[in-house]
Amino acid sequence: MKYCSGCGASVSLQVPEGDDRRRYVCGSCQMVHYQNPKIVVGTLPVIGDRVLLCRRAIEPRHGYWTLPAGFMESRETLLAGARRETWEEARAVTCCEQLYAVMSIPDADQVHVFYRAQMELPDFSPGLESLEVDLFALQSIPWQKLAFLPVKRVLTSFVEDHARGKFLFREETVTGEME
Amino acid sequence: MKYCSGCGASVSLQVPEGDDRRRYVCGSCQMVHYQNPKIVVGTLPVIGDRVLLCRRAIEPRHGYWTLPAGFMESRETLLAGARRETWEEARAVTCCEQLYAVMSIPDADQVHVFYRAQMELPDFSPGLESLEVDLFALQSIPWQKLAFLPVKRVLTSFVEDHARGKFLFREETVTGEME
Repeated sequence: MKYCSGCGASVSLQVPEGDDRRRYVCGSCQMVHYQNPKIVVGTLPVIGDRVLLCRRAIEPRHGYWTLPAGFMESRETLLAGARRETWEEARAVTCCEQLYAVMSIPDADQVHVFYRAQMELPDFSPGLESLEVDLFALQSIPWQKLAFLPVKRVLTSFVEDHARGKFLFREETVTGEME
Repeated sequence: MKYCSGCGASVSLQVPEGDDRRRYVCGSCQMVHYQNPKIVVGTLPVIGDRVLLCRRAIEPRHGYWTLPAGFMESRETLLAGARRETWEEARAVTCCEQLYAVMSIPDADQVHVFYRAQMELPDFSPGLESLEVDLFALQSIPWQKLAFLPVKRVLTSFVEDHARGKFLFREETVTGEME
C-alpha cells in the first residue's frame, strides 16, 4: 500500500494516536487503513465413502489437489460462500452441510472455514480454476499431491473421524508449509 | 474507495475478466482491489455464575453494554485476538476458552467468533474503549441496554445452555437490528 484509497495522497506506516500497532495512515486526510485477516470458505464434499477433490488450474500450487474453497465475498454467509466456491471450482451442489473445521492460519493472515457436505448425485466438472475434479476413496487420497496444509489437515481429520464413525467439529491453528 | 492504493490513479467499479462481481479496478495499473468480510473476535468471560460485560465508551452504541470483542488483527489466531480484545477492553485475563459461537453477519460484512472463557480471578477494569466493566448474574443481564444483536444472541445462548447444564457450540446467521 502506497497511496490513500480515499484521497490519493501518499500513506506511511505509523502508530495512530490511541493505537499500539503500525498502520498505513494518509499524510493528507489522516485516514487509517486497517488490514485484517481474510476468510477462506470451502467444503469437503462427500458421496458414499468418497470425497471430491479439485486439481488446481491456477497458481499457487498449480496441478496440486485441493478441496473447493476460496475467499468469502461481501454480503454472504460462511455457508453461502462455501457452496458458491464448490460450484465455481467443481460444479458440484452440496446439501446437509455441517461446520467441520475452523482454522487460524496466522502466517497467511487467513482463517479457513470448512463444512462437511453431502453430494446427492455424483455430478461435477472442473470450473475455470480447476484442471480436473474427481472423487477419491479415502485410501486413494493423493496425500503427496495436496496443495495446502489446511486441506491436508481437514482430510486427515475426516479419515480419522470416518474410521471411528464419529465426526467432530474442530478448531485449530495451522502453521508451517506442505513438505 | 476512489484511488488505487498501489499507484494512486483513480479506480472504478467494473467486472474484471473471468470474474462475475463488480470490483474496484485501477484505470492505470489494472490492480483489482478486493473487499472481503472482516472477522470480529471476542469472549464471554465467566466467573462462577456471573458474566463480564463492558459499557461502551465509543460509538456506535456509546453507553450500551457489550462483550469484549473487536476486529481480528494480522498475524494472530482467533483465540489470541479474543484474548487481546478482552484485555484491551476489560483488562481481564481468561483461560480455558472454548469456541462457542461463529456468526455470519452478512449485512455488516462481518463474521463474529466468540469463546466461552473462564476468569480465574474477578480482576478487571475499563480499558480505553469502555466506560465501565462489571460482572452480571444471569438474571441481571441488562437485555434492554445491550449494544449489538450478536452479543444478545451469544448471551441468550449462554443463559439457555446454563439452564440445562450443557454448553453447545453453535454456528448461525444473524440479521436485523437491536430493537
